[in-house]
Amino acid sequence: MTPEFDRALDAYAELIIKVGLNLRAGQRLIIRAPLESAPLVRRVAAHAYDGGARLVEALWNDPQMALVRFTHAPDDSFTEHSTWPLQAGLEYAENGHAYLSIGGVDPDLLKDVDPARLATVQRTEGRLYAPLSRLISGDAVNWCVVGYATPGWAARVFPDSSPDEQQKRLWDAIFKTVRLDAPDPVAAWQAHVDDLAARTAYLNDKQYHALHFRGPGTDLTVGLPDNHRWLGGAAPTGNGITNIANVPTEEVFTAPHRNRVDGVVTASMPLSYGGNLVENFSLTFEGGRVVALRAEKGEALLRSLVETDEGSARLGEVALVPASSPISKLGILFYNTLYDENAASHVALGRAYRNCIANCEELDDDAFAGRGGNTSNTHVDFMIGSPQMDVDGLMEDGTAEALMRAGEWV
Amino acid sequence: MTPEFDRALDAYAELIIKVGLNLRAGQRLIIRAPLESAPLVRRVAAHAYDGGARLVEALWNDPQMALVRFTHAPDDSFTEHSTWPLQAGLEYAENGHAYLSIGGVDPDLLKDVDPARLATVQRTEGRLYAPLSRLISGDAVNWCVVGYATPGWAARVFPDSSPDEQQKRLWDAIFKTVRLDAPDPVAAWQAHVDDLAARTAYLNDKQYHALHFRGPGTDLTVGLPDNHRWLGGAAPTGNGITNIANVPTEEVFTAPHRNRVDGVVTASMPLSYGGNLVENFSLTFEGGRVVALRAEKGEALLRSLVETDEGSARLGEVALVPASSPISKLGILFYNTLYDENAASHVALGRAYRNCIANCEELDDDAFAGRGGNTSNTHVDFMIGSPQMDVDGLMEDGTAEALMRAGEWV
Repeated sequence: MTPEFDRALDAYAELIIKVGLNLRAGQRLIIRAPLESAPLVRRVAAHAYDGGARLVEALWNDPQMALVRFTHAPDDSFTEHSTWPLQAGLEYAENGHAYLSIGGVDPDLLKDVDPARLATVQRTEGRLYAPLSRLISGDAVNWCVVGYATPGWAARVFPDSSPDEQQKRLWDAIFKTVRLDAPDPVAAWQAHVDDLAARTAYLNDKQYHALHFRGPGTDLTVGLPDNHRWLGGAAPTGNGITNIANVPTEEVFTAPHRNRVDGVVTASMPLSYGGNLVENFSLTFEGGRVVALRAEKGEALLRSLVETDEGSARLGEVALVPASSPISKLGILFYNTLYDENAASHVALGRAYRNCIANCEELDDDAFAGRGGNTSNTHVDFMIGSPQMDVDGLMEDGTAEALMRAGEWV
Repeated sequence: MTPEFDRALDAYAELIIKVGLNLRAGQRLIIRAPLESAPLVRRVAAHAYDGGARLVEALWNDPQMALVRFTHAPDDSFTEHSTWPLQAGLEYAENGHAYLSIGGVDPDLLKDVDPARLATVQRTEGRLYAPLSRLISGDAVNWCVVGYATPGWAARVFPDSSPDEQQKRLWDAIFKTVRLDAPDPVAAWQAHVDDLAARTAYLNDKQYHALHFRGPGTDLTVGLPDNHRWLGGAAPTGNGITNIANVPTEEVFTAPHRNRVDGVVTASMPLSYGGNLVENFSLTFEGGRVVALRAEKGEALLRSLVETDEGSARLGEVALVPASSPISKLGILFYNTLYDENAASHVALGRAYRNCIANCEELDDDAFAGRGGNTSNTHVDFMIGSPQMDVDGLMEDGTAEALMRAGEWV
């Protein structure tokens, strides 16, 4: 580690605490993190304590342990689970404390694992963690998702570089995506968050009845519920703190109507899901539901994702990102949703964010569905935007207004 | 990592599962482990699953995070704690599953930390973990403590070697202590366990009223309760499995009478406690209680240990180990109780093992005290044996029988 990298990693940790989480004195913080990210976790903890945090704990995960399990455990054991990792998250989220998640594991680590075993674990964990997912994705507390350039991930992104070079290049890219190359990163984030707020205000005022996406392999109409809300950038949370839940973030997003999605959509990037890649795939929707799918690679895994539960065959998010976004301009395929979703417009299968439809925070699942919102134990984004994508906003009477042309805001 | 080391680490993992834990098909296993021990944790998990384990989870700890907390957290925050790490252990121990603890962190990592902060955390965690400590040390389930040669620990043990050489030398020593250099390690363990069983049978038959230790700076009488039990090597556990709770182990041990310890004892090795070393220290006992102490280094920490709670000023264990034990013969000061306690006779401040007095497993603390057993939230061993130590067994009428002379069994 050079002193220069050391300073950059420390600035990144400070940004996570001050801009992403906006952590307050007196709060506790739990950090879900892969073992390899320990150098960042320790720096984040130091900045948290320096700002008056009372307790900072890491909930470590080791993807290699998952691989050991998938390759050695008895075939009928993959629904087994404990409850303490869930309790760890709930102990923080139910008591107004902050939650940080660090990603960046090798997106292809589990590529040789039996897809049936993977699907069983995904389904089991999706059900198990549903209470925590609902609290976090519902902004009950200040939370944030960030990335760490692990060697395995860097090797996937820059396969032709040397291992040292791979990690250095990925770190350089990550630091750019989070505006650490700006003279004053905190000021740069404030200006960026203001831009996103102006965009969501415009779209919220329009209240389109649907969006219409047209591009190579895509002709998709995504209905929007009455009183849907576009969000993006900073958001107020249930514990009274305004956070930025993804660092980086370039998207504005809302909830699709669970029963009004029709047509065909073709992904514009690979999807990393459950330690595997799904590539060159498309989905066909009727009345909100996936009725057909195909993928050149990972079709069985994609099918198991769609079949996770009743809601995983419907959309829970639609997000608009210009093809010229700073992340898109890096020209890097990250194989990681946090970055790739901020380089292209995208949709997500599964759970909708409750705060994307007005006054839904307290509704039960059935009432939320009645408002058009989708419920599921999963939420998986995939990218559909490209420089060939046109997007129209449709009024209830069918009138179309151009929103994006050739991937750019009109 | 050389292929040779790789094979040795794998054999060590297999020994831990088959000899230490004696893990059974259908069990789950939780592993409390420092981040740096991941290569061993993954191998242990593979052997556990290969033997039919249903779920193996690691409860990782990062000593560096503790250091960050001690140096950055607000001064009045050191009684803060969460409950999920305790819940993790209880979820296993209360349901008949196995528990493995991996030690080996730098024994001097926290040497510059404010002793008051350290003492507060030790006291808070001692109280918090008491229900789990009682289950584990009471052999409710099969459990095991083993070591991992982390770089920080190896540097302390072999300060004059190069970093690579330090870790290699410590691994060589660890592998010897656990008999991996025997042609058939499992058979060597069986013979060793049989030896220890013969020794405990002899002592249990004798039912001495007290032990008398004499050596440089030591003249100590340790009373033994009626119906005390000597244990050592393999032991039956509450879930019906016979385990070996320490790998390595060379000791036979029992519970002292909490009110009948008198005299002066001088430690024969440094004590590593809470990431700090206490060196060249002695304790004076009257009626079972520490009434005076002194230490050349770490006296404040030793005092805070003794003052943890009512029971921490009394003894909870007395153990006999010949000065010629295989671990002692290595001539290495490990600064780690698991190894050093098996190189020398020792005593422990704090909690007594309930199964060291007949029929005490179900008694409450007061009734246990009535039988002579000590209760505390802590249990900290320190070494008193040396080649200059004589030990007598005393009958109730004062008759003395020589047990050890010049550190060896008579």
